[in-house]
Amino acid sequence: MDKKALQELLQQVANGKTSAEVAAASLEKQSFTDIGFANVDLARQKRNGYPEVIYGEGKTAEQIVEIAKVLQQQTAPILATRVSPEKFGAVKIALPEAIYYKEARCTVIGTALPQTKSYIAIVTAGTSDVPVAEEAAITAETFGNQVERVYDVGVAGIQRLFARLDVIRGAKVVIVIAGMEGALASVVGGLINKPLIAVPTSIGYGTNFGGLTALMTMLNSCASGITVVNVDNGFGAAYSASMINHL
Amino acid sequence: MDKKALQELLQQVANGKTSAEVAAASLEKQSFTDIGFANVDLARQKRNGYPEVIYGEGKTAEQIVEIAKVLQQQTAPILATRVSPEKFGAVKIALPEAIYYKEARCTVIGTALPQTKSYIAIVTAGTSDVPVAEEAAITAETFGNQVERVYDVGVAGIQRLFARLDVIRGAKVVIVIAGMEGALASVVGGLINKPLIAVPTSIGYGTNFGGLTALMTMLNSCASGITVVNVDNGFGAAYSASMINHL
Amino acid sequence: MDKKALQELLQQVANGKTSAEVAAASLEKQSFTDIGFANVDLARQKRNGYPEVIYGEGKTAEQIVEIAKVLQQQTAPILATRVSPEKFGAVKIALPEAIYYKEARCTVIGTALPQTKSYIAIVTAGTSDVPVAEEAAITAETFGNQVERVYDVGVAGIQRLFARLDVIRGAKVVIVIAGMEGALASVVGGLINKPLIAVPTSIGYGTNFGGLTALMTMLNSCASGITVVNVDNGFGAAYSASMINHL
Amino acid sequence: MDKKALQELLQQVANGKTSAEVAAASLEKQSFTDIGFANVDLARQKRNGYPEVIYGEGKTAEQIVEIAKVLQQQTAPILATRVSPEKFGAVKIALPEAIYYKEARCTVIGTALPQTKSYIAIVTAGTSDVPVAEEAAITAETFGNQVERVYDVGVAGIQRLFARLDVIRGAKVVIVIAGMEGALASVVGGLINKPLIAVPTSIGYGTNFGGLTALMTMLNSCASGITVVNVDNGFGAAYSASMINHL
Amino acid sequence: MDKKALQELLQQVANGKTSAEVAAASLEKQSFTDIGFANVDLARQKRNGYPEVIYGEGKTAEQIVEIAKVLQQQTAPILATRVSPEKFGAVKIALPEAIYYKEARCTVIGTALPQTKSYIAIVTAGTSDVPVAEEAAITAETFGNQVERVYDVGVAGIQRLFARLDVIRGAKVVIVIAGMEGALASVVGGLINKPLIAVPTSIGYGTNFGGLTALMTMLNSCASGITVVNVDNGFGAAYSASMINHL
Amino acid sequence: MDKKALQELLQQVANGKTSAEVAAASLEKQSFTDIGFANVDLARQKRNGYPEVIYGEGKTAEQIVEIAKVLQQQTAPILATRVSPEKFGAVKIALPEAIYYKEARCTVIGTALPQTKSYIAIVTAGTSDVPVAEEAAITAETFGNQVERVYDVGVAGIQRLFARLDVIRGAKVVIVIAGMEGALASVVGGLINKPLIAVPTSIGYGTNFGGLTALMTMLNSCASGITVVNVDNGFGAAYSASMINHL
Amino acid sequence: MDKKALQELLQQVANGKTSAEVAAASLEKQSFTDIGFANVDLARQKRNGYPEVIYGEGKTAEQIVEIAKVLQQQTAPILATRVSPEKFGAVKIALPEAIYYKEARCTVIGTALPQTKSYIAIVTAGTSDVPVAEEAAITAETFGNQVERVYDVGVAGIQRLFARLDVIRGAKVVIVIAGMEGALASVVGGLINKPLIAVPTSIGYGTNFGGLTALMTMLNSCASGITVVNVDNGFGAAYSASMINHL
Amino acid sequence: MDKKALQELLQQVANGKTSAEVAAASLEKQSFTDIGFANVDLARQKRNGYPEVIYGEGKTAEQIVEIAKVLQQQTAPILATRVSPEKFGAVKIALPEAIYYKEARCTVIGTALPQTKSYIAIVTAGTSDVPVAEEAAITAETFGNQVERVYDVGVAGIQRLFARLDVIRGAKVVIVIAGMEGALASVVGGLINKPLIAVPTSIGYGTNFGGLTALMTMLNSCASGITVVNVDNGFGAAYSASMINHL
Repeated sequence: MDKKALQELLQQVANGKTSAEVAAASLEKQSFTDIGFANVDLARQKRNGYPEVIYGEGKTAEQIVEIAKVLQQQTAPILATRVSPEKFGAVKIALPEAIYYKEARCTVIGTALPQTKSYIAIVTAGTSDVPVAEEAAITAETFGNQVERVYDVGVAGIQRLFARLDVIRGAKVVIVIAGMEGALASVVGGLINKPLIAVPTSIGYGTNFGGLTALMTMLNSCASGITVVNVDNGFGAAYSASMINHL
Repeated sequence: MDKKALQELLQQVANGKTSAEVAAASLEKQSFTDIGFANVDLARQKRNGYPEVIYGEGKTAEQIVEIAKVLQQQTAPILATRVSPEKFGAVKIALPEAIYYKEARCTVIGTALPQTKSYIAIVTAGTSDVPVAEEAAITAETFGNQVERVYDVGVAGIQRLFARLDVIRGAKVVIVIAGMEGALASVVGGLINKPLIAVPTSIGYGTNFGGLTALMTMLNSCASGITVVNVDNGFGAAYSASMINHL
Repeated sequence: MDKKALQELLQQVANGKTSAEVAAASLEKQSFTDIGFANVDLARQKRNGYPEVIYGEGKTAEQIVEIAKVLQQQTAPILATRVSPEKFGAVKIALPEAIYYKEARCTVIGTALPQTKSYIAIVTAGTSDVPVAEEAAITAETFGNQVERVYDVGVAGIQRLFARLDVIRGAKVVIVIAGMEGALASVVGGLINKPLIAVPTSIGYGTNFGGLTALMTMLNSCASGITVVNVDNGFGAAYSASMINHL
Repeated sequence: MDKKALQELLQQVANGKTSAEVAAASLEKQSFTDIGFANVDLARQKRNGYPEVIYGEGKTAEQIVEIAKVLQQQTAPILATRVSPEKFGAVKIALPEAIYYKEARCTVIGTALPQTKSYIAIVTAGTSDVPVAEEAAITAETFGNQVERVYDVGVAGIQRLFARLDVIRGAKVVIVIAGMEGALASVVGGLINKPLIAVPTSIGYGTNFGGLTALMTMLNSCASGITVVNVDNGFGAAYSASMINHL
Repeated sequence: MDKKALQELLQQVANGKTSAEVAAASLEKQSFTDIGFANVDLARQKRNGYPEVIYGEGKTAEQIVEIAKVLQQQTAPILATRVSPEKFGAVKIALPEAIYYKEARCTVIGTALPQTKSYIAIVTAGTSDVPVAEEAAITAETFGNQVERVYDVGVAGIQRLFARLDVIRGAKVVIVIAGMEGALASVVGGLINKPLIAVPTSIGYGTNFGGLTALMTMLNSCASGITVVNVDNGFGAAYSASMINHL
Repeated sequence: MDKKALQELLQQVANGKTSAEVAAASLEKQSFTDIGFANVDLARQKRNGYPEVIYGEGKTAEQIVEIAKVLQQQTAPILATRVSPEKFGAVKIALPEAIYYKEARCTVIGTALPQTKSYIAIVTAGTSDVPVAEEAAITAETFGNQVERVYDVGVAGIQRLFARLDVIRGAKVVIVIAGMEGALASVVGGLINKPLIAVPTSIGYGTNFGGLTALMTMLNSCASGITVVNVDNGFGAAYSASMINHL
Repeated sequence: MDKKALQELLQQVANGKTSAEVAAASLEKQSFTDIGFANVDLARQKRNGYPEVIYGEGKTAEQIVEIAKVLQQQTAPILATRVSPEKFGAVKIALPEAIYYKEARCTVIGTALPQTKSYIAIVTAGTSDVPVAEEAAITAETFGNQVERVYDVGVAGIQRLFARLDVIRGAKVVIVIAGMEGALASVVGGLINKPLIAVPTSIGYGTNFGGLTALMTMLNSCASGITVVNVDNGFGAAYSASMINHL
Repeated sequence: MDKKALQELLQQVANGKTSAEVAAASLEKQSFTDIGFANVDLARQKRNGYPEVIYGEGKTAEQIVEIAKVLQQQTAPILATRVSPEKFGAVKIALPEAIYYKEARCTVIGTALPQTKSYIAIVTAGTSDVPVAEEAAITAETFGNQVERVYDVGVAGIQRLFARLDVIRGAKVVIVIAGMEGALASVVGGLINKPLIAVPTSIGYGTNFGGLTALMTMLNSCASGITVVNVDNGFGAAYSASMINHL
């Protein structure tokens, strides 16, 4: 909307010809692109600091490509999460510059932002938690964060944790990822003085209820300074951690 | 039952030869057709305003066809929901006039009723909620309602909602469809002065529990004027909305 | 905000001296009154059709009085729900015109709106559901609706329901209130052709889980045309019903 | 155990050479046959009135055949529930006299017991509930009960129920089978003066939670005289009903 | 309604002056008495075999008295359950013939029906289950059943059960009442050949969830012939048992 | 039962005059005392290794005294758990030798059994867990176990745990008691080579669900060698631990 | 521990006279004070950045005082949360410098740390959420953070939120506190580019399940950058926010 | 780490050149081997009494082989649980000495430890519980325990249990494995004087909730001396039982 059009619109409000509400709506219509099956949010980066991330689950490869193309006109890099290898194959044809991170199930289009000096430590209890951790790591790296991976240091062999404690303590923000009973978050939380974001995973059996047990453990932690995201939500943890790491 | 048979029956009641109860049962038997595997309800339209709708899940294509044929003798159009493309293929052979709405997974046999002037607005939070929205839209249109679709205006990019607010406010009744945390229902509810029917969807991950989280969000909304239907029940929302829209 | 101030503000937007956003916020500040512990919403009636209703639970009598006084400057009548007899005693001193409806636990300040010709039928399964029904009834009457009460017609003695069916069928919208297993909603839903709003109540014992069982029954009803509100939420049901009844 | 062995054993107890406990265990060993993977209970019929029924789920066809052969030496007919068509194919080869009831997923080996004069009414809400109903019906018939089937009379079209009420009222015991919200049990319970056994089914969608909603509805019924069995447990309902019908 | 009035009414139906439905409603109105706060069901005994039982919880003493007086005109004895000692005090003044059973929290007005020869065995796991058992026992006795009490024979000391097994086996129907883990129902169910109604109680601690654990145990019993009622519902178990015992 | 009576009884079985079952029941009747409201289990110690423990909750002081007196004739010491100070006051009058442990809410009548050399370590996460720990400690000491208390060593300050690790490692069996998220069990389990019994406590807030969260944490522990008892069940943990410690 | 003692200890490890483990334990014992009922953690500030906070619930006033006195020797200010007015009265006598924040139910002993320039915005949906918000605010202020309170801006009157958006956007970290359906977190999350910590509150009725519904809403938010703490845990949110604000 | 290196390290601590913490970490690094995707815990046997067991679910055959090879350098035998036949095929090629136990789904590499004289009794309710029982049995045997299998003795035919009671009573520790309602644990618990570890299984249908019902039954058992492990966790039960059996 050029300046003149804006002045005109506001004049109409002032004259009572247009309601303030309608004028506002009119302004807002500039901030997204309707591509039929979706309204791509072009103001997201301005409003939230990061461009819209494409959540790949439940979207076809074609839809991912179309949204990516709209976003490309405004921003880079573009991140798509929960992308299966099959979908990536189809995306790759349309967008040859797309890169795939298999374990993270993420696709990145465009160069990652320059890395911070401070880093995010990503800590897992077991090897089964690694896919969630990698989703977090790729998200963080794409958004310009240095990342340190500290994997498989669960409390069943707590000496492994102590051996890596210096790396964890050196981070600006720590992500702890654990399934089963999720006790690692409390233990790490009691040993550091940085914000800790806990991610429960759906790893486990018996009564872990798809990660609910680990989630409840983390929410009820006796250690302070812990906040929690949804089960298996490595992306969400990294998104918040990146905001903190860039402060 | 012709008049004479009716008189006879009642005479028997008056004489004490037939109990009032048996007579009533006798009358009731006229109101449905027993086709072996089902009692097709012929009085539904008279009693409820709309003919029986065929719920396709768990029924074979043959059963759908047989029920449709009984209903056809009394009413039109006939709506069948939750019909897979495979089942529709088989239905189409027996009932060539049947039309299929792929995204809605609905089949309609016969012409839709004439449209109302007032319309129902169907609003979704995301693109993944569209199948439920289309089930609602096709149901509403089949039952003679004008429909306005307002899709992908969730609160993560709330300016998209404000840009379409005039369409929503112009409706006689609004259906809001959202998965994940379902917050859109509360936000829309706080902005309109028309009845709002909220439909939680099973879209989400982690602890959305197949739509239960969105359902609970909608039931506990801080905004007034919101009523709720079951998870993914686009049909049910449209059925109630149609009743309201025809008042 | 007088017209000149408005013009000035918009001019600043046009000049780029004020962002559109700040201007919008400035306009929005006119629409509520900050009384320290609450922001009383003065635009509610314009936006939602009804003025803000005071939810009395968790508010002191003093807070109720203060909010009521702000609202009184703009609207009448004012409704406060979930008001205990003790609180009402204190409210009555400050606002002598306030009237108390004991069974409904509601207070009304000012004359009810003129009644509609069409009516809302409020149906309960048992006598224990009456307090919730009365909350609905007083809400509806305050908002200008004619109400017909059909109480204690639960399915354990279904002939009581049939005896009152004509009254129920004559309504423009029906509210069904039931605890225990909540089956009444399905039965009534199968017999009428008007919108039905179901209210589960927390009445019951054993595994009724404070109304959750009745809620789930109502959400899963095999009858169509039923929408549901939260447990014991007579107010919410009446609010929606009133919107429908006034269409 | 012949009489002499018994006397000897007891003499040992009297002499203190064998403890009473060991003697009792020795006696108990006569009452079942250890076939390696199972201890077939030969005293079941004496103790419980009916021979052991083979629960087919989780057993191989070979295991079903082996158990059936042990039972055949003592009793007839033999009933196996939850038998898939594939398993039945294999069973049929080893036991050619075996008969299969497809909808009920039951196999019967041997002639059903002579039928009672009084009958069990089996009532379903919908057509989707029929497989559970047929499991109940075949069980009841195998155990020597006359059965009346009253299917698809759910409360959404309640006149269908009233039209069949005389058949239901004539039964000695009534089984009501319903999914979704399960309201039919309450309605029938309010209309009859015979024991009613309610069976919730897993039929439904949204928040029916695999039958849990119907189960809770039935347990919380406002009508008296209703007892409940587990979700989809047609067999269990028929077993109890048969006990009652034979009193 | 006398015969003439009936004839007249039916004549109107035959003439088309009155619809069959309205006539039916008219007939139905004879079957209950509207006393303002309740519709007392006068046809319950004819329909269900037993007169309406007054559920005392949530009713005032005055309401209990009023309902009892209406029922007294038609039936005897009258049973009121869940009556606190305080309420009974007030009931006693108005109805001096009322008798109170303290442990059962039941009031009976009028002489119990003559006892059956066959008896109902009421079995409890512990002493804490006795109040529920007594509610069952008084209900059964009031409805004319002989009762045998077998209390405190839980599986922690299973020899106590075996010592009373002959009494249990001699019953026509058995009620088993247990809290905590509710295992007694399965054990008794495996030892008898009569219908068994299981009542979970809310007795327990930790994760018994107000009786839900015992309820689930009983519903999932590996023994056949068990049906279940709601938590603490001694009355409901006895009601069904009485129906069975009178067959 | 003297020897002669026993011989006679068995002779009757051998002769077929008495069934083996009746004879067994006759023998079993010797093993408990019926005191009206309870069947005191006199064979418990022989069968289970420990005499019956009186669960004080839900029993009156009089009942506790009566049961204690029956038990006193056979065994010592007698333990009663969940005894409020008020009840103890009344018990003390009847049984002056009774001692009260206030924090544990336990009463002991008679001298504790001689202590083992090996000991049970009882470890708590916080000070709020101490009442449960003391119930465990008094139970263990009464049953003849040496106990080491290691309290308030939760993972929020994990150095406190390491400082006491030698005491924990020296035990023959370890009880870990924790509320909130219950992570301590996993950490201790990873550090010792002895059986560990975990007790979740109801200490916490928000979503600890009365101890359910800690319970689930402990059941899902990534460390091996952990078994779990019910929420707040200090007694049960000590009972099992005592069995293990006496092996 | 002076340097000489340290050298001696390590020499013993080097010689094999003391194990490394025992030496470590010895060192760790310096880091807390055992005051009988609690091990006060003196290394918490060094390890976690903040001294131990006293959780007042379940502690007596005497215990609070004793712990505070130990902490006072090392640090200031000291914060105690969940302190009732009654307990504070007793604390005040022993520690006259203690100050009480009634709405927050917090006690502070000693001067708050110097305030940051950047601030934490604390946003609530309603007035009922204010006690949780004040617990957060007092915690944050005690730990040296500037705080901006933005109360009662829930989505039912969303214009109130937009009017305060500039204050929220100006914060370094935002805490959003909401009960009922908790939708405010998603809406704010969609509008800002700073870390957001969401606190569900137990405010609500019907099926809000003590805050669980709001908790699930927040965990499933469609907006990114949101992490969550336990229900009503204002303290925990402020603790994390303070860590972030001090980065 | 050789002695000289150790001395040097400690000297540095004594001089203040290295912190005690860093020194400790340095020592801890010796206790595990980082093989990229996992940190194999080499100190497990020393710390916990048994070497690390490989949990096969979610690991590839290659990962199992690699971990096994690291462990082989230190210990024997090596146990891997939850290994599918397909995975075992691949493992067998790399480790020809590996043996597979099909029903238990376990692989053992190396000779089992010498058997104890005392034995563990493993008791199941049904034949469907046998896979869990075999996982327990193979675990126990691999860890050097004599095992007695007592299968299919559930309470529906309780005489089967009594016939094997002597074997159960002769054990040093008893594992009871049951699905459905899990009542067997309580019954066995009431009959023995040895520690009992209960394992709920996911066997059942209807409302057994994947084993949750049996789990809750076992946790709430009225019999003492019972501790519980997670659903289907035969390995965990055997691990604890082995610890007890070796005392």
